[in-house]
Amino acid sequence: MSDRRPHVVIVGAGFGGLSAAVALACSPVSVTVVDRRNYHLFQPLLYQVATAGLSPADIAAPVRHVLRSQTNAEVILGEVTGIDTATRKVRIGPPEAALDYDYLILATGARHAYVAPAWERHAPGLKDIEDATAMRGRILLAFERAETCADAAERARLMTFVVVGGGPTGVELAGAIAELAKRALARDFRRIDPSSARIVLLEGAPRLLTGFPESLSAYARRALERLGVEVRCGTFVEHVDAAGVSVADETIGARTVIWAAGVQASPAAAWLGATADRAGRVQVAADLSVPGCPGVFAIGDTAVLADRDPPLPGVAPVAKQQGAHVARVIHAAVAGGPTPATFRYRDYGNMATIGRSHAAADFGWLRVRGYLGWLLWSLVHIFFLIGFRNKVMVMAEWAWAYVTFQKGMRLITGNLDRADASAPEG
Amino acid sequence: MSDRRPHVVIVGAGFGGLSAAVALACSPVSVTVVDRRNYHLFQPLLYQVATAGLSPADIAAPVRHVLRSQTNAEVILGEVTGIDTATRKVRIGPPEAALDYDYLILATGARHAYVAPAWERHAPGLKDIEDATAMRGRILLAFERAETCADAAERARLMTFVVVGGGPTGVELAGAIAELAKRALARDFRRIDPSSARIVLLEGAPRLLTGFPESLSAYARRALERLGVEVRCGTFVEHVDAAGVSVADETIGARTVIWAAGVQASPAAAWLGATADRAGRVQVAADLSVPGCPGVFAIGDTAVLADRDPPLPGVAPVAKQQGAHVARVIHAAVAGGPTPATFRYRDYGNMATIGRSHAAADFGWLRVRGYLGWLLWSLVHIFFLIGFRNKVMVMAEWAWAYVTFQKGMRLITGNLDRADASAPEG
Repeated sequence: MSDRRPHVVIVGAGFGGLSAAVALACSPVSVTVVDRRNYHLFQPLLYQVATAGLSPADIAAPVRHVLRSQTNAEVILGEVTGIDTATRKVRIGPPEAALDYDYLILATGARHAYVAPAWERHAPGLKDIEDATAMRGRILLAFERAETCADAAERARLMTFVVVGGGPTGVELAGAIAELAKRALARDFRRIDPSSARIVLLEGAPRLLTGFPESLSAYARRALERLGVEVRCGTFVEHVDAAGVSVADETIGARTVIWAAGVQASPAAAWLGATADRAGRVQVAADLSVPGCPGVFAIGDTAVLADRDPPLPGVAPVAKQQGAHVARVIHAAVAGGPTPATFRYRDYGNMATIGRSHAAADFGWLRVRGYLGWLLWSLVHIFFLIGFRNKVMVMAEWAWAYVTFQKGMRLITGNLDRADASAPEG
Repeated sequence: MSDRRPHVVIVGAGFGGLSAAVALACSPVSVTVVDRRNYHLFQPLLYQVATAGLSPADIAAPVRHVLRSQTNAEVILGEVTGIDTATRKVRIGPPEAALDYDYLILATGARHAYVAPAWERHAPGLKDIEDATAMRGRILLAFERAETCADAAERARLMTFVVVGGGPTGVELAGAIAELAKRALARDFRRIDPSSARIVLLEGAPRLLTGFPESLSAYARRALERLGVEVRCGTFVEHVDAAGVSVADETIGARTVIWAAGVQASPAAAWLGATADRAGRVQVAADLSVPGCPGVFAIGDTAVLADRDPPLPGVAPVAKQQGAHVARVIHAAVAGGPTPATFRYRDYGNMATIGRSHAAADFGWLRVRGYLGWLLWSLVHIFFLIGFRNKVMVMAEWAWAYVTFQKGMRLITGNLDRADASAPEG
């Protein structure tokens, strides 16, 4: 950097990193945002890309376009390969380069975690656009294969979809797959009846949506069951392979298994040599700084507050509030003024949608469900989407889908081998 | 097939195959459409996907959804592996299967053709959605790499884009890349000025758009030059590698080279053991049947009329009219009635657009250019897009782009190695 302002490097342009960058707009610092993708992704709607309801570009905004008017910020496409906390350098590549930092904010998110690594191949998770388009391809391909399959048992496996994990993502995925099968695809096949597809949602805890009040969990279960989803709570997955999923009392034959259970933080703790919890999250102090690494902060899914049990949920509002908090801490350090108090999460509530016209929303002081909850869910998600174009297009797509019951993005793209990984060899 | 109606197998759900399928809706036949993709692609707008103006789903419609109400038609996802004309069987896979046909329509299109096969890696062409998203990634990645590149010569190569081929696709691509660089990206970078990007369009013939009248060729050239594109006609490419393109008098250093020159037909002629021309197109008789292969027809980019010189252009209207013609021939054969006369192409005209607000349209009796031509071009393309949703969404995207000068789909997705194939090793 040619100017002498303190240099803040932000790694990751998700909710946390972008919120920190924007909150530093008026601070006397220069900001560099590094991400291995050129876009910010609105992850809460990723399940709609995976189920053919939205296009990738509808929920993604180029990072440098978002920050184009913020004159103290620049954006670099690159992947972190290491961090030297002694000399305050972040190494990135390719091409290889090193960034000197005065302050470093790690907001690199999380990936899926599996009980056994071999399960990943058969039960992909949903974290980025490639995951979503591959999952879309797999789901659609299962119906295509079923249409031409002469063997009844194999056809049944092709038309069985198992979602592992009953949190918001699992609930939303199961609901969207049910709608895809029972509505959008219903009239398009000649030999199979897509509406007879079996959709199973497995959850280890005794109820779905454990972060929500019990009444909303029960509502979500009823709404899913009305859509034809088999919900099994208190059920742990013991094995996953190309033939299906084994739970305690049976093996569910399924060619499409989707993982919406545990996550594992990015390797930020390893880069820093810092203390991490079992999920790989960096333990941070009450101001979100990383002990022993001066000038370094970790936020969002990458971080866990050392003294907070249970940990904060891995949701967008936590990451955004933490990003803004770290920005305030840095601003106070470089520009003077009062140092902010310790980070405190303001929980404005939780929402999950179950297909068309149903959602559960819990704001603490208010619980909304059904059609009203769904309208609210739609408005909130459109409000928080980044970019005017994205807001308008997603609204238009939803309006069209509401009227027609269709899903407009039914494309099997990319490497069919990848989409078809769970199919039998040959 | 369980019924005893004559079975028409159509391979390929492009303009030709789909037009034949739809035209057989009221014929006493059963129709099977086989495609290795699950969607019909509106190829004339593919260049807009490659330049971040549209999403893939905007120009694609699931084949089985298009034909859902046509009760005599079914759709199979599969790739042809061989044809046995003696027993009248089409072999497809995976999974392997054989379809018996009474009539077979081959509408399998074309791929790019290169003077030397090694060029393909460095100069990708544009025929399917994967090509388009990879090309979009390459173009956007070149600017990202330029932003962090310290070496001035390499930065210049990264910011040079060469389009080989001055037909409609090449002209439209060059115009769209110029607009992307000079308008949409202009304010988003800090170290480079995207509007200084060099865009070169190479054409071997003495003028662009050789299928158009000379006055429109000259207009297209002027319009491109106003956008800052360097147009070089009468220029043949002698070599392409990772460093750029060599023509007679110089080597143009460029990390992004795009191939919009020759095409090679699909291997239909090899499947049939039929006579093909140099571009691999099956020679067909005046009724589009393949001599020596009873019941077999070839249409669109897969076929060439034996007695027609120069051959018909490889455009959508030819394929659509040929599909409808073959449907009439088959209808007459199975249902009686007059056999249609030999195929005659009705040329309603040609259009090509050069960025925002400029297009050249030639209807024989009328030539339109400039803003009016562009409006007409937009209307015609929306009219022919398949699916109400696609029409509305593309109109909305274009309206938004017209007002804001932005391109909304600026995502680098998929395998970055593929997108980055032209970058130097390491």
